[in-house]
Amino acid sequence: MYFEDLEIGARREVGSFTFTAAAIKKFAAQFDPQRFHLDEEEGRKSLFGGLAASGWHVGSVCMKLLVTDGQRRAAEAAARGETIAVWGPSPGFRDLRWIRPVLAGDTLSYASEIASKRLSSSRPEWGIVEARNTGTNQRGELAFSLLATAFVPRRHPQAAP
Amino acid sequence: MYFEDLEIGARREVGSFTFTAAAIKKFAAQFDPQRFHLDEEEGRKSLFGGLAASGWHVGSVCMKLLVTDGQRRAAEAAARGETIAVWGPSPGFRDLRWIRPVLAGDTLSYASEIASKRLSSSRPEWGIVEARNTGTNQRGELAFSLLATAFVPRRHPQAAP
Repeated sequence: MYFEDLEIGARREVGSFTFTAAAIKKFAAQFDPQRFHLDEEEGRKSLFGGLAASGWHVGSVCMKLLVTDGQRRAAEAAARGETIAVWGPSPGFRDLRWIRPVLAGDTLSYASEIASKRLSSSRPEWGIVEARNTGTNQRGELAFSLLATAFVPRRHPQAAP
Repeated sequence: MYFEDLEIGARREVGSFTFTAAAIKKFAAQFDPQRFHLDEEEGRKSLFGGLAASGWHVGSVCMKLLVTDGQRRAAEAAARGETIAVWGPSPGFRDLRWIRPVLAGDTLSYASEIASKRLSSSRPEWGIVEARNTGTNQRGELAFSLLATAFVPRRHPQAAP
């Protein structure tokens, strides 16, 4: 997708992931070794009420699904003979929210929705797009949300005014 | 540390981590399988100029070092017979920036600095603290930054006004 192809409000589902106890503990041991991420009983005694996934795990799984969805769509576009837009690296994001605990056994369905788009004033070949990425659990409750920024190439770059 | 103990501008070093090629590829294969995170040659051909760590890897390592630093300090305080403040779960963060690529062989030193503090209006036993967490590479260049929010217990809670 080029900058011109992206419509504000356009939403796509990028996949789902079930957070097993084993996956939660494995990530936590490496990157977030707090007791409620490592042990069921400690999780039950905590504010989370159960073995809870690290927030960084919830975000990293979102990244994985966004990347593999993008790769799948790029392969499909290439198979149709279309030119593939190569997005730039992300400069970061803002407004990340861990809204509800993600407990062992929960399945999050992730989605991405275009929130804003504008031209880069310094680099006329690029647009800047913000996307609201979310994770919703099997009860339909929003558990995770962030507003990501990406540089997206323009299909027909013009000189900056 | 209780809410009252935290001073704006107070900074602590929480540890450093060297991003080896093996660690970069292992994280990327699980959570961010883009070519420049998985292969040296693809990294060299990319805007990063080398095998680059996933931004989520850079952030997850920051979390690991913050947690282990906190656990070490809590153990030291307990050994001195002090009461340990149990921080609440983080509701999220804002303004995450990936400022410079983190390439294979780079060592990031992470630090955390208190940026703001205020009382919770709805929960008088808690304060809300923002900390600017950063990762600086071996050349002294800022590579990673985020503004984290945490609920921190008050030492002497009073009724809300």
